[in-house]
Amino acid sequence: MEAFLEEARRLLAELVALPTVSAEGRALREGAARVAEVLEGLGLEAALHEGYGPPVVFAEGGVGERTLLFYNHYDVQPPDPLRLWATAPFALTERDGAWWGRGAHDDKGELVARVMALKLFKERHGFLPRVKFVVEGEEEVGSPHLEAYVADKRDLLQADAILWEAGGVDAQGRPYLYAGLKGIVALELRVRTAAFDLHSSYGAVVENPIYRLARALASLRDEEGRVLIPGFYDRVRPLTPLEREVLAEIPDESEALKEAFGVGGFLGGARGLEFNRRLYTEPCVNFNGVHAGYGGPGSKTVLPAEALAKLDFRLVPDQDPEEIPALLRAHLEAQGFHDVEVQVLEKGERPARSDLAHPFVKLAREALEEAFGARAVLYPSMAGSGPMYPFLHHLKAPAVGLGVGYPGSRVHSPNEHIRIRDFERGVRAILRLLELFFLGR
Amino acid sequence: MEAFLEEARRLLAELVALPTVSAEGRALREGAARVAEVLEGLGLEAALHEGYGPPVVFAEGGVGERTLLFYNHYDVQPPDPLRLWATAPFALTERDGAWWGRGAHDDKGELVARVMALKLFKERHGFLPRVKFVVEGEEEVGSPHLEAYVADKRDLLQADAILWEAGGVDAQGRPYLYAGLKGIVALELRVRTAAFDLHSSYGAVVENPIYRLARALASLRDEEGRVLIPGFYDRVRPLTPLEREVLAEIPDESEALKEAFGVGGFLGGARGLEFNRRLYTEPCVNFNGVHAGYGGPGSKTVLPAEALAKLDFRLVPDQDPEEIPALLRAHLEAQGFHDVEVQVLEKGERPARSDLAHPFVKLAREALEEAFGARAVLYPSMAGSGPMYPFLHHLKAPAVGLGVGYPGSRVHSPNEHIRIRDFERGVRAILRLLELFFLGR
Repeated sequence: MEAFLEEARRLLAELVALPTVSAEGRALREGAARVAEVLEGLGLEAALHEGYGPPVVFAEGGVGERTLLFYNHYDVQPPDPLRLWATAPFALTERDGAWWGRGAHDDKGELVARVMALKLFKERHGFLPRVKFVVEGEEEVGSPHLEAYVADKRDLLQADAILWEAGGVDAQGRPYLYAGLKGIVALELRVRTAAFDLHSSYGAVVENPIYRLARALASLRDEEGRVLIPGFYDRVRPLTPLEREVLAEIPDESEALKEAFGVGGFLGGARGLEFNRRLYTEPCVNFNGVHAGYGGPGSKTVLPAEALAKLDFRLVPDQDPEEIPALLRAHLEAQGFHDVEVQVLEKGERPARSDLAHPFVKLAREALEEAFGARAVLYPSMAGSGPMYPFLHHLKAPAVGLGVGYPGSRVHSPNEHIRIRDFERGVRAILRLLELFFLGR
Repeated sequence: MEAFLEEARRLLAELVALPTVSAEGRALREGAARVAEVLEGLGLEAALHEGYGPPVVFAEGGVGERTLLFYNHYDVQPPDPLRLWATAPFALTERDGAWWGRGAHDDKGELVARVMALKLFKERHGFLPRVKFVVEGEEEVGSPHLEAYVADKRDLLQADAILWEAGGVDAQGRPYLYAGLKGIVALELRVRTAAFDLHSSYGAVVENPIYRLARALASLRDEEGRVLIPGFYDRVRPLTPLEREVLAEIPDESEALKEAFGVGGFLGGARGLEFNRRLYTEPCVNFNGVHAGYGGPGSKTVLPAEALAKLDFRLVPDQDPEEIPALLRAHLEAQGFHDVEVQVLEKGERPARSDLAHPFVKLAREALEEAFGARAVLYPSMAGSGPMYPFLHHLKAPAVGLGVGYPGSRVHSPNEHIRIRDFERGVRAILRLLELFFLGR
């Protein structure tokens, strides 16, 4: 195992050294080319697919009656703020039993784990199983071209199951996997009440955009977090009995999170099953920011001309991110907020959830439990979002996420890292999954 | 008159050259010393009063049965943003029939106009009338020590009437004067819901401070601008018949302002008398700024931990700025906003209005009308605020403001200036007021 970890570290260091920051368009071609080389080194045939933003690395090969498709991405979040990094973000370092660097977990660490699991499979069984890779280069900026890509290439991508990116162990060290992701749509609300900022003494007669925006935002949900936009919940698909059963098995982390986040409690006093139900299977509206007028020290008697808010809606099956802005606009109109302008910031992502009854979900859970020698937690959906929907929709195959991280991995933050022990067990779980999927018990 | 204007320009240039920015504590001692010298040059005895922030210049002298007190200030607003100035802010320039520079109007131009009027009075009548000057150095930062100063020095400051700072002609060129100012209290509202910013996927269970703040702000007034805080209007003194009469004489500038400000209309559809009643005699709440979370380009899926708003209340007689924060806190508590923290940013200023029936008000109006050869507009109060209250309260004398500016003077903004023609007529009005006050008709 020593030699295997050394090889993984070398490969991860090579990938981390490429600053593939999609938000800044940095090193994306180099990143795609290097990933293609690595996959060809495995014995797969790789190609760079152009015309969908940065090149999509596609690879396929191996033998088997069934096909497993891996989804990953080679782009990373910006490393800012740089001063908070203990070591340079694009130079992988090993210390305290962990590998540190931007992308060490998300998603280069995950990709390397899969490559290593396939190598180990080949060494142990003498052949490469039938796999495909889709490694995109703009996941960190919302995968704007991935839906079109998957639709166009659906025949080429055809697979029986999909291994999604990311996962690992939870705060208590339990391995987990998940079968879905929430959808998302991000918007901006803007109110302009005058041509320019005025002296605040005119506040006696001139409307204030902060007041209008505050009222509009307050109209979007109730005190318990329920969204008040008519029609918002219409397409929410009720949980199946199996989904409810799986949900009820998720450990209650609400007390631990209350402490960790420094909050007095959760919306509607939710805890236990209700907490998990909301977090993993309920849609919501979230305000990301609001800005208008003066925000410096002391006071400034200004009446601003404009106010701006950014918000996102997290969606669950079968809500449609393309429908939400229209529902929001209709709500604002009906409430008299004709002056509130709505702008969609990103195309959005559809919610996705695999059929929990599919044998692949069970298989993945078994592989995880065998590798960790512990009970695994299955999440019907995660609280976050990702571009899973087009894969489920076009390939008619289930997707499951499991991986090599832990809650302290600092994904998207300075000092991103994975613990070598998590990596090792994560690789073993993927290897076991390959064996169960291609060889059976 | 040529020589007189040349002397005024030289004196104003000298004062403008001193960058007496109180917000930055710049050149305040030099400013105070220079003003004292100028007043001594008139034949007054001047002193710098210490212990009330930057030195207060006090001066007195002259002969007469009655005393007129001038209130002015030698500090100015910061000149930022510097790049918007056509010429250097602290170097007075003359072009297009105007004098340009920081403080050219507010308040160095006003002070110079009074000095020149007294010189002209002395030349014409052979003696200096009995006047006092209070010239403070922190008007632009809310005059935090002036109330204590006036209380302590009430005997020294004793006067029969007060000439307040600032004034001039309105947008139609009509001269105006005013007999009161609104009070003000500036506050900050802050909501913290968690120990640090979270990923927005937690919005399904964790409270959002923007929502809490939005609801709190929305609870403070109704759609027409009426403040909803219980007790807020309790101390509002009804207008006297004379005040109502004077209010009804103010020209309707609502249509012109609608166009100038680029607004569709005014709160509650106010125009004409109702517009003037609200603007000049009604209290209000005004939101100066709101800030939380992300405000950059595109979207960022963050759930901020804290949200902040700045607001001010404009007050009318006999509302008390020290009482408002307690009323606000009680309102927030009653509405369930236990999580909204209220902080008073500045001590505030009490509203003040002189008795419109006092002969001095009539005298000032006559002086203005004689100097301009036109009907003058009398405002019972202005929409803005200032430290007039302690003078009215402790000296039991009326205060009237008139001056040398116009609506385009760009007070507090880059390219501040006064038109020489306005200055000249303003000086004549002050001279005429001195004659009417000290010599009678």
